[in-house]
Amino acid sequence: MYLAKIEIMLKPGVLDPQGATVREALHALNYSSVEEVRVGKYLEVKLAANDPAEARRAVEEMCARLLANPVIEEYRLEIVPARGTGEAEPCALG
Amino acid sequence: MYLAKIEIMLKPGVLDPQGATVREALHALNYSSVEEVRVGKYLEVKLAANDPAEARRAVEEMCARLLANPVIEEYRLEIVPARGTGEAEPCALG
Repeated sequence: MYLAKIEIMLKPGVLDPQGATVREALHALNYSSVEEVRVGKYLEVKLAANDPAEARRAVEEMCARLLANPVIEEYRLEIVPARGTGEAEPCALG
Repeated sequence: MYLAKIEIMLKPGVLDPQGATVREALHALNYSSVEEVRVGKYLEVKLAANDPAEARRAVEEMCARLLANPVIEEYRLEIVPARGTGEAEPCALG
């Protein structure tokens, strides 16, 4: 079982009105040191796979087909091992 | 100038209907290996600060006051150096 951590951002140069709104809100709260804000999505996908490479291939395909819009968005992936919900918890007794 | 990379997620146990919908959509596309999907936000905040610790303090305050909802959300921060928009680009000539 693997956990894919996916950051999806608008490509550089694509207008980000949500980020601009957050920046204005931060300025209104006197955080004048903030120069730019970009807002994206963060997803965690837990999936079964035989190895990290297989998990990465599957998640990249999911990103291209459903999770991201490749015309205006780019994404970054990290694959880490995860415990499945059906597996035993480690024993916490001393 | 520093760039804060902020991942904001619903706390474990908080119902995530958006994540459940994405999981169902992935199953409909035959990605049956997907066990769970959680959807969060990802923000990049570029800000002026004297050192990374000052940047982290400022961004943690922004998260608590505006960017995240501490009742149902948790966040992770990473602070990396960034180039300001007014600073010179490195020379690309050979």
